[in-house]
Amino acid sequence: MVNDFQTKVFKKEKITLAGRDEYIVRGGRDVFPLLPKAFEGIQQIGVVGWGSQGPAQAQNLRDSLEGTGITVKVGLREGSESIPAAEAAGFTKENGTLGEMYEVISESDLTILLISDGAQAEEYPKIFAALKPGSTLGLSHGFLLGYLKIMNDTFPANINVIGVCPKGMGPSVRRLYEQGKDTNGAGINCSFAVHQDIDGRATDIAIGWAIAIGAPFCFLTTLENEYKSDIFGERGVLLGGIHGICESLYTYFKDHGASDEQAFIQTAETITRPISKTISKQGLLAVYEALSDEDKKIFQKTYDAAYEPAHEILLEIYQEVASGNEIRSVVMATTERFKRHPMGKIDGAPMWVVGEKVRAEATDRDSYPIHPITAGVYLATMVAQVDILAEYGHAYSEIVNESIIEAVDSLNPYMDYKGIAYMVDNCSTTARLGARKWAPRFDYIFKQLTYPALDDPNTQPTGAFEKFLNHPVHSALAECAKLRPSVDISVFPEK
Amino acid sequence: MVNDFQTKVFKKEKITLAGRDEYIVRGGRDVFPLLPKAFEGIQQIGVVGWGSQGPAQAQNLRDSLEGTGITVKVGLREGSESIPAAEAAGFTKENGTLGEMYEVISESDLTILLISDGAQAEEYPKIFAALKPGSTLGLSHGFLLGYLKIMNDTFPANINVIGVCPKGMGPSVRRLYEQGKDTNGAGINCSFAVHQDIDGRATDIAIGWAIAIGAPFCFLTTLENEYKSDIFGERGVLLGGIHGICESLYTYFKDHGASDEQAFIQTAETITRPISKTISKQGLLAVYEALSDEDKKIFQKTYDAAYEPAHEILLEIYQEVASGNEIRSVVMATTERFKRHPMGKIDGAPMWVVGEKVRAEATDRDSYPIHPITAGVYLATMVAQVDILAEYGHAYSEIVNESIIEAVDSLNPYMDYKGIAYMVDNCSTTARLGARKWAPRFDYIFKQLTYPALDDPNTQPTGAFEKFLNHPVHSALAECAKLRPSVDISVFPEK
Repeated sequence: MVNDFQTKVFKKEKITLAGRDEYIVRGGRDVFPLLPKAFEGIQQIGVVGWGSQGPAQAQNLRDSLEGTGITVKVGLREGSESIPAAEAAGFTKENGTLGEMYEVISESDLTILLISDGAQAEEYPKIFAALKPGSTLGLSHGFLLGYLKIMNDTFPANINVIGVCPKGMGPSVRRLYEQGKDTNGAGINCSFAVHQDIDGRATDIAIGWAIAIGAPFCFLTTLENEYKSDIFGERGVLLGGIHGICESLYTYFKDHGASDEQAFIQTAETITRPISKTISKQGLLAVYEALSDEDKKIFQKTYDAAYEPAHEILLEIYQEVASGNEIRSVVMATTERFKRHPMGKIDGAPMWVVGEKVRAEATDRDSYPIHPITAGVYLATMVAQVDILAEYGHAYSEIVNESIIEAVDSLNPYMDYKGIAYMVDNCSTTARLGARKWAPRFDYIFKQLTYPALDDPNTQPTGAFEKFLNHPVHSALAECAKLRPSVDISVFPEK
Repeated sequence: MVNDFQTKVFKKEKITLAGRDEYIVRGGRDVFPLLPKAFEGIQQIGVVGWGSQGPAQAQNLRDSLEGTGITVKVGLREGSESIPAAEAAGFTKENGTLGEMYEVISESDLTILLISDGAQAEEYPKIFAALKPGSTLGLSHGFLLGYLKIMNDTFPANINVIGVCPKGMGPSVRRLYEQGKDTNGAGINCSFAVHQDIDGRATDIAIGWAIAIGAPFCFLTTLENEYKSDIFGERGVLLGGIHGICESLYTYFKDHGASDEQAFIQTAETITRPISKTISKQGLLAVYEALSDEDKKIFQKTYDAAYEPAHEILLEIYQEVASGNEIRSVVMATTERFKRHPMGKIDGAPMWVVGEKVRAEATDRDSYPIHPITAGVYLATMVAQVDILAEYGHAYSEIVNESIIEAVDSLNPYMDYKGIAYMVDNCSTTARLGARKWAPRFDYIFKQLTYPALDDPNTQPTGAFEKFLNHPVHSALAECAKLRPSVDISVFPEK
């Protein structure tokens, strides 16, 4: 595990998470004056792509670097449908801040590549050929490294390769940056990685980039750990897990006499609402502690029955990601299968149709109690995900983010607002493929192993719940809570 | 597509399936006298492993080669738990027909490797090193070739490599061989493959091996097509598909008012009983034609709504198998994940618990009618599987077998006898992992896309059903029916 770095420009701080030392850098408006030094030698930053991250990062960088003489130029394909949006944000050919993507790549001293995973996989040889020798390639996701590994290929040797990965979606990166003008500490935390450093400048360019897009705290990772934890996390509890947990519990509750509406409220609504809020504000143990004595027993038994099955599926996911299988699958889907079968939506399935109605007709969504079975399955899955990332040597800042914080502070509130099915049907292609693939696996293993054990009066404790009570994640989460942005991550510009 | 071969010993016959010429060899007791010529130069055949195929092939070979002077010797690990069973079948150290597996490999002129896929993957370097130069390696499944491909490795250059793949499980291979003593044409059909032929003998050794274990008909394939169609087929309609179809329809029927018991009968029982029997005796169209006019309309609409979603999942499975992902997954599971998580059973899930009760209490299982929705989903999945194998250039004899005949003549009758969950929980590790992985995917895509379309009164025909009416598979299946063994494949020695 890489857990230290050297910066010539910024101030490094030590934190301790779950007994492990990590080093971070604190961002904020007060360190913006250090950006020119971090970006020394960079005249132009090219931001390539205008999807989720592109608009946010391009605008934040431009605003942060105003008056420094560094140009932020957006690169798009000729005739791209995003040109009007980029122009509306002030990036135009006329003022020299909008150009054809390969031209922008070849001119820039730092190229931030924000096109889709599929496009990166298809076009990387051409992109690498266009990069200026001695320049820096920036990624906001390690997918390309994962793809190069399965292709037995590498980045060009004559460039720096860095990553800055905001822990929230693009619109939040922009919105909180704007709030940061008035509210100190508002912004989206980022992990950063230095994959290839040819001139000793890579670390400070990476940290500078993170701070310039508004990160209040910057955490070290590696590009490899980033893509593994990211692709794993979204297939796990963040998307695939929550989807599968809800589907399986929906059937379970109906089989035990609940109406469709009750079953929906006891699952999806319970998770995205009281469970997420409790974890976000008070941590994981608070969910258990909020229960009645009777419900505590049910939670314990459920947690015990769910932990090992969840761990089994999550371990399979981690192995599939680490082996390259999952990336190969994404590429086969996007380059071949989609030609015949465009990806379908999940929201026609009965549970989500019922859910739309329940959500539309609800009058008092704030009154839903925490159901102990739902809490037990959800928390067991979350902690199993934490444990696997820890077993594979990820930094605890990354673990806690990819398993808990991103769920309760970013995705679940958004799901609460728009619906879980909407979220799954509208996330990135890589995430969406993964959620559709793994949700059914969680559903089936809980149905096959967890609920039969839960319903069996002779089931004995497994010890999983005992470990939960004393788990190191609780202190790590509390510590990370101190490093939260001062404004909530989730923002809802439109319904 | 390889579709022809040269034999110096046997008689080749031409057949035409779905408009494509294929060549086959007819086996039977009357051609046993040709075996010594086919096996010229072979003094000892080593049969390594005593799982499903081992006991059957070792005994059949010994019986067929009696009096020829060729020794059939079983190879097992020192201390193997299978030694008593092998001895009971007459293979003993005392009479020189049982030995340590690597000794047997190094002595044999033809080594038939029937250990598990996982063991082949782990031990192949040692096995290759033990093989006698100039000898022949026989496989009953192409898995090892698939594994070598992902390892960027190859078979040793100084041996023949052939495959003979019986189209039924080991106990059937033995049982029907025994019936073949009295009933001409009883035995299990085999596909055969010549992967590496260093001396011009490989083809006749392969056909001789197939005939010696009792094959009434021998079909040509390649080891690569064999493992692709085999691993694909069991993840598809043969195991994963039928499991997922039943689970999804069980929920669908319950959501539409059926009792648990009715829902089970309308799904699992309908497929393994009247639908399978009808296909086996009269073909696919007969299932449709047996329906009332009203039910025919329901079948049409269901078939239309199910075909594309089934095709989508099956295409994904084929790509996962062909890319090596699926084999990598099996190896990761067996060599790593099983240490922490032994594979769980599916039979604790509600549908199968209900099913056990229904099956135990049933008094008139022969009276179940064909449910048109169940028939529509099942046949659409079956035909989608046929179409994908045809698109990827498989021989129609292989297509029809891996998609239809193995289902209705071998697996479904066994499932009817012991239960679908029992079958999934007790098949080979590779198949079992695949069924557990893909069943939920079929379930979810039907739930998300097929049933909403089926319930929508405005859904229009897609053309899939029209193609079904005129599909080339009907004539190919009728032609293959002529090449069926004279005794039913499925045999049930014990319940």
